[in-house]
This record gives sequence, C-alpha cells and structure tokens, in this order.
Amino acid sequence: MEKPIIFLQKNFRTEFIQQIRDIAPDYQIKTELNDSEFAKVEIAVGWQKQFSQQLLDSKNLKWVQSISAGVDYLPLDTFAQQAILLSNSSGIHALSISEHIIGTLLGYYRGLNQAVKNQVVNSWQPENIHYDQLAGKNLLVVGTGHIGQQLSKSIRSLGVHVYGINTTGHPADGFVETYSIKNMAKIVPEMDIVVGILPGTQETYHIFNSHIFENMKESAIFVNVGRGETLHTKELITALEVKQFAFAALDVFEEEPLPKESPLWQLENVLVTPHISGLTVDFQNKFMKIFLANLKSYVADGSLSENQVELKRGY
Amino acid sequence: MEKPIIFLQKNFRTEFIQQIRDIAPDYQIKTELNDSEFAKVEIAVGWQKQFSQQLLDSKNLKWVQSISAGVDYLPLDTFAQQAILLSNSSGIHALSISEHIIGTLLGYYRGLNQAVKNQVVNSWQPENIHYDQLAGKNLLVVGTGHIGQQLSKSIRSLGVHVYGINTTGHPADGFVETYSIKNMAKIVPEMDIVVGILPGTQETYHIFNSHIFENMKESAIFVNVGRGETLHTKELITALEVKQFAFAALDVFEEEPLPKESPLWQLENVLVTPHISGLTVDFQNKFMKIFLANLKSYVADGSLSENQVELKRGY
Repeated sequence: MEKPIIFLQKNFRTEFIQQIRDIAPDYQIKTELNDSEFAKVEIAVGWQKQFSQQLLDSKNLKWVQSISAGVDYLPLDTFAQQAILLSNSSGIHALSISEHIIGTLLGYYRGLNQAVKNQVVNSWQPENIHYDQLAGKNLLVVGTGHIGQQLSKSIRSLGVHVYGINTTGHPADGFVETYSIKNMAKIVPEMDIVVGILPGTQETYHIFNSHIFENMKESAIFVNVGRGETLHTKELITALEVKQFAFAALDVFEEEPLPKESPLWQLENVLVTPHISGLTVDFQNKFMKIFLANLKSYVADGSLSENQVELKRGY
Repeated sequence: MEKPIIFLQKNFRTEFIQQIRDIAPDYQIKTELNDSEFAKVEIAVGWQKQFSQQLLDSKNLKWVQSISAGVDYLPLDTFAQQAILLSNSSGIHALSISEHIIGTLLGYYRGLNQAVKNQVVNSWQPENIHYDQLAGKNLLVVGTGHIGQQLSKSIRSLGVHVYGINTTGHPADGFVETYSIKNMAKIVPEMDIVVGILPGTQETYHIFNSHIFENMKESAIFVNVGRGETLHTKELITALEVKQFAFAALDVFEEEPLPKESPLWQLENVLVTPHISGLTVDFQNKFMKIFLANLKSYVADGSLSENQVELKRGY
C-alpha cells in the first residue's frame, strides 16, 4: 500500500523536511499534489481555500496544522463531522504582536505618528505634538490567551497596570484582575487603553460596538489585533468622528485589504496598519516547534500535544 | 534691609508658590522684575538669555536652578568665577525620553512609520513593510546617567541586552557591561542599537562621527536624544546615504529647528522628531521635587542636595 501524504502548503527549509522524515518515516512529504494524490493526504500543514474541497472529499484527512493562530476561515463544522483534528499556531506571533501593540501605544503617546507626517513636508512642529506617558496607565486586555499574557508581561514592566477579560473571568497569569466578557462595558470606564485580541467566533462577533465605545474615557485608546469581525466598524467610525474616545490603532478589519474608500484611512485619530502585527522573524523555527511536537504525538498515539483547537469553541 | 529675591522664570501653580514661601520666608518671590530688582536676585529658577547680563552684573546671584537637564547654554565659566551654584533638572525627563526611545525603535522594527506614510495615501501595503524583533537585540547606551539607567531598566524587561558607555567605563546599575568612551568604536560592531544620551561638552563634541558609523552593523539603528552637538551631522548624512547602517532616529540637532533644506528630512532611513523626547506630563510636580529639596538645603546651610552641576565638567 502506498504511504499516506503529509501535504505542506508552504515551503520549509531542508533541515525541517529531514526532521519530519525522521519522526514520520511511514509518510510521504509533498508540497505539490496532482489530482489523484489529494485522496491520500492524511496530514495537511496550512489550509488554502482552493484545495479545501478535494481534501475534504477524500475522507482520508485526519489532521490539519494551521499556520495561522486564528482558524475562523476553516470549515470547522465539517472538521467536526469528519473527526478531523485541528491545531493552530497560537503563540508564535505573541512576541511580535506584543511589540506591535507597545509600538502603536508609544507612537501615539509620544507624538511619533504626528512627527512622521510632519517630516514628509520638512516641517518642524514641536508645538502641535500631543504627548502623554504610558507608565501609570490602566490597560484592559480583551482575550487573555498567549498573546494577551505576553503583552501583559512586557507592558507591566513599563509601569502599566494590566487587567484582563476572558469568557468567564477566570484568573490568568499576570493580570491585576480578570473579568468575564459580559462585564466588559462596566470595567471600560476605568481604562486608558483597551486592546482586542479575540478570535473570530459567534460569541465575539461585533463585541466592540457603540455600547463599549460610549463607555470609554475621552482620552482612551482602542487597539485591535484580534479579528476584524470582533469590531463593529461602522459604530467605531461614528465614535471616532465624534471623538467619543481619543485614538484607535487597527491592524485587522472586517474587510481586508481595507477598501480604499473606507473613512478610517483619513480619520486623524486612527492608525491603520495592514495586518502586520503578527509578522515575525524566525517564523519557521517557531512554527516547527509546534508542528514537530504534534507530529511526534500524532505518530505515537494519534493525539496532538500542542495547540489543539476545540472545534465547537473555535479556538 | 529688603529681602533677597527668588526669580521664577516660569509660572508655577499656587500650591508650589506657597511651599516656596513656607521653606524660604526670608525671600521675596517674583516672576517679573523691574530693572532695579535684578540686583536683588539671589536665586534664579530657569535661565533666559535676555536676563543673563543683568543677573550676572549684580554679583548677588548665588544659585541657579535650571529647568532643563542640559546646561551647555549657560555661561558656566562665569558661574565658576562668581561661585554661583548650579543645579539641573536631570531625571525629570528620564521616563519620557525612555518611552520615546522605545517608541522609535518599535516604530522602525514593526514597520509602523512606513504604515503611517502609506495611510496618508489610503494604501494597504503589507508586502513593503520591513519588520524585525526588538527582543534579543544588543543595545548600547552612550551615557549611563539618569536617562540611560531608566532606559536600561525599561527595555531590559522587553528582552533587550543593554550595554553602557561612560567616561571611564565605571560600572552602572542595570548594564550587562560598561565601557569607557574611548573604546566606543570597538564595541559598536556588536551592537544592534546605539543610543546617544550625552550632554554637550568639549569632550562629547562630534563624538558620533564617521569612525563610529563605519563600525556599525548594516542592520543597526542609531538614536540621538542627547545634544545635537554630539553628532557630526554631515558625516551622519553621508553614512545614511550609503546605508552604512540601517536607520537613525534623531530628536536633537546641531541647528534647531532643523533647517528646511537639511537632507535629513527626506532620507528614507531617518526619523526626525522636533526635540520632543523630553516633553513630560506632570512636569511641575517632578520639577518641584528637585527644586524644593534644594531650597531646603540651601536655606539651611547654603548647599544643594539634588542634581548639583560640576561646573568644570559641565553636567
């Protein structure tokens, strides 16, 4: 019988291919497939829409290791029906996203964004620089997973007081206090900074909406690096237009690329970044730590040791 | 006999005026002077060029509390001849400058400056974003005083390895290792980031020059928040034009405001900020902690307890 296939939908360095071979000698490793081979794929690394149907039709797919942290773009219901295991790459991007968030906050508080714009026109304008201090601020992390915990660890050491929100309000490492998501609006008035790091699920859809914005301090900042769908974009735009709070730094959007005609681009109190917060150096090393550990446990007993996604929950 | 004058060259809140009165009841407090009053000034808070001659002519001036950290614009030789005490405001700006530096580094490493420019023209360009990771980098702080120590404390907790340079290479709090200033060029090749936080003195004039730049890594960053005169601007521009190193973030300049025609404005690999790194919230509180402590010791025994400047050294 022919060996089952591990289908890599991304090119990895030779050293990693060799390690896959060593751990799973009874599999073939392919980065491209002809039509007849899709039926033999047991393990898929990465998930591209164009191959979705062929991979699922065969009923031989057993495990998908996603390259992203969020898995809301995968057909989770079908995975559940077919008992396909799914693991994500949560954690790989945590340090990068944490640095991105701190950079956007300091860019605003230290007037750096304004300075970049003035530099374009050779204009020295210290008098129009808005400045503030990060140290001493209250920050609410909405989503206390890998990224939230990394952010908390880093930014606490800069003198920030970090609070957390998660589904049930269960305690999490490194937060002064944690609250359940249904109490978010109640705690928001005390916060200088609200950071959204939520996965895209039915429960989190449009969870950042006018009800939250109208409870924010006038001087507050909102940062979103989770999923664009967690944000009610229209209500955000209204809140920013009337300056219900001071500044938003958005890296993710309901529609990406953000359409040319979106008012967000030209709002003075918005920083738009093109979904870059997760870009991370040394990605292959970080990714392979997760995948190879999972491959070992999968080969040994069919289980995943790292980052298995609960399909019903969606993360 | 009429009471000697404390001349405040800046307006402070009533609560602070009252505290000055309580500590020094035998002095008059003035924020404006008529010509006959300059001769009665014993203590000056702040130093404006326009009053310099009148204050020095009287020979009654005993102590100047500067509002800035750098005192290179004061007539230090005359102060020494007339035995005028001088204290500076070093320390007040440390946290702001430290946050400014971290912001500029992350702005570069996380591609935020580029994103700000792209946003101006509604352009979504993730593919042209340069990104890197701050954690793990080697950073050289040139000048291990208040600001250098604050920076070290903050940025170490973000995973950066911090080395220091000072006059003699004496150990300083929070640095992996310290080197003497004459060895700077030798240690620079190991560094990812070089931060200048030096006062303006004869010894530091043009200390950042082609000899330093040609020793820097191609990927390295140079940040200057000390004095503009510590930097050989022309040699920096040449180094940046040929990309001897990757990026410079400059907050201070040999000529301020930076002239419209300076090539620095339009160099791709430069961030120009208009001397804003020291802007700090809650300035009066921070300043008065130093001044009132000094006023107490001055009234008691003529000495300064905080931040006395060694006039010959210049800081």
